[in-house]
Amino acid sequence: MPLSEFDLIRRFFSDCGAQRADVVLGVGDDGAVLECPPGSQLVAAIDTLVEEVHFPKGSPARSIGHRALAVNLSDLAAMGAKPAWALLALALPAADEDWLAQFRQGLDALAQQHEVALVGGDTTGGKLCVTVQIMGFVPHGAALTRRGGQPGDEVFVSGTPGDSAAGLMLEQSRLSVADAGHAQWLLERFRYPTPRVALGLALRGLASACIDVSDGLLGDCGRLAEASGCGVSLDYDSLPVSAALRAAVGEERARELALTGGEDYELCFSVPAAQLEQFVARCPAAQFGWSRIGALRSQRGAVVQRGASVMQVSHRGFDHFG
Amino acid sequence: MPLSEFDLIRRFFSDCGAQRADVVLGVGDDGAVLECPPGSQLVAAIDTLVEEVHFPKGSPARSIGHRALAVNLSDLAAMGAKPAWALLALALPAADEDWLAQFRQGLDALAQQHEVALVGGDTTGGKLCVTVQIMGFVPHGAALTRRGGQPGDEVFVSGTPGDSAAGLMLEQSRLSVADAGHAQWLLERFRYPTPRVALGLALRGLASACIDVSDGLLGDCGRLAEASGCGVSLDYDSLPVSAALRAAVGEERARELALTGGEDYELCFSVPAAQLEQFVARCPAAQFGWSRIGALRSQRGAVVQRGASVMQVSHRGFDHFG
Repeated sequence: MPLSEFDLIRRFFSDCGAQRADVVLGVGDDGAVLECPPGSQLVAAIDTLVEEVHFPKGSPARSIGHRALAVNLSDLAAMGAKPAWALLALALPAADEDWLAQFRQGLDALAQQHEVALVGGDTTGGKLCVTVQIMGFVPHGAALTRRGGQPGDEVFVSGTPGDSAAGLMLEQSRLSVADAGHAQWLLERFRYPTPRVALGLALRGLASACIDVSDGLLGDCGRLAEASGCGVSLDYDSLPVSAALRAAVGEERARELALTGGEDYELCFSVPAAQLEQFVARCPAAQFGWSRIGALRSQRGAVVQRGASVMQVSHRGFDHFG
Repeated sequence: MPLSEFDLIRRFFSDCGAQRADVVLGVGDDGAVLECPPGSQLVAAIDTLVEEVHFPKGSPARSIGHRALAVNLSDLAAMGAKPAWALLALALPAADEDWLAQFRQGLDALAQQHEVALVGGDTTGGKLCVTVQIMGFVPHGAALTRRGGQPGDEVFVSGTPGDSAAGLMLEQSRLSVADAGHAQWLLERFRYPTPRVALGLALRGLASACIDVSDGLLGDCGRLAEASGCGVSLDYDSLPVSAALRAAVGEERARELALTGGEDYELCFSVPAAQLEQFVARCPAAQFGWSRIGALRSQRGAVVQRGASVMQVSHRGFDHFG
């Protein structure tokens, strides 16, 4: 790719996302210069999407732009951090203006929505690979982590996990769904996941531990439990399943996808009994869309309980396809 | 790549780089939690190395680890920022333990040297592609940028540009050099470039503008001049050329590579006449290895002067191979 094309691409991203007063110098120099708010701690994360690993070849560019930022926003949400700035590293085989315009649109819309400024980046030739690095803030000592859970804490998940995995199967033509509305819902959950930033912020001081669900609910919930030095028991019948997913793949498969599907970008979190009342008051389920799915326990490991019996479920999370 | 391998890789990088008291939470959660020093501005940059674009297939893993961090340190150096933290996004086709150990060694050694902590990352399957994001600090308002140059400011470059381009040709077997010592020098300049962090810090308050030379001296120097709203005239005979490069490719080709070779990761900067005395006193050439190569001027564009005549040089920088 000749340098003129890099310059073109740089111009594409020189005015992307929100305008923020704390950006002293944004895109266009060797680095961005940024003002950190006093009394806060910086939270930083990085996530990569690779073509044919995280999305099939031919995925809509707008979706790729959206997802590249969404997966990072979801990391900040899991930390209870308010997002501020992002950097973009983009490897792409050619400077296709239509593709870039669509990609930018997906990234820009989500960045605007969350008041995130794109402050820098790097573009290079290569197989399509998108890395976004994100920075945000928490008040001193207020970050949520995976570590603070205790046996007895109740476990919750946002949204309806499994939808995204079914959406990916639709994207890959590995699933067909009769109802066009259902198909559309599932596909959108894969293409345009909703990072739960507002929920993460609301959970500060309430959740004992929190994790971003990206590799499958069971695996990620198990990671939260492990980091907290305990285990977890999930209740099969309490797993939230969307009507679309149930209609598309049936009851049993829907719950299996909810447990192991991956790419959900929902939050899984634990709340101690002492905080439950305040949690329900401050984070009404009707507004934040969470479900209680189980509880932490002292016995290590992650299990799924169905009535009186413990189910056999593979403990592995989602193996990215390809 | 199964999840167990990702866990293996995560463990590889959980204790990489310097230990820093300002890292509240490092690798292993959804994000890192970091303490910004009061009275400072955050400087952030991101850079990607793609196999067969930035380095040939089969390059030593230690070199790739070194370069992935070095190119980012060079960005911070150009901003006059003191490096603090880095995040790593690594796409790789397989979890080869030997490769990872070598890669980590290259990254770790350079991170230790510059007191940089690796605070987080993401690993995924895919074609080898390494993105590092780096954060550092400048005192309020002290960042160097490309913008502050004025006509009449003298222009300098660190090191001996062109060596790295010749080293890359050696790496690709596109050049043969009789003297083993010279060959080794050139190859090392490509594989293990030296980010000029100390020089960048010393230039605060002295340089009017500064840029990281990664796409070729002439092109990058032209970018500095353009951002400063002026042009630049470089003096052909003043271009610093190493003995190794001169011996390897001859006098003329050496200067051509110095101007357009790329991958140098040197600093090019301008110093106003009023600061020259202090610059020479605070940054002795013997210690920092800089050369005066020209001056900014009001007439736009970047030209190379040889005696009384202006040379014809392609203004393009270095087009990454492949």
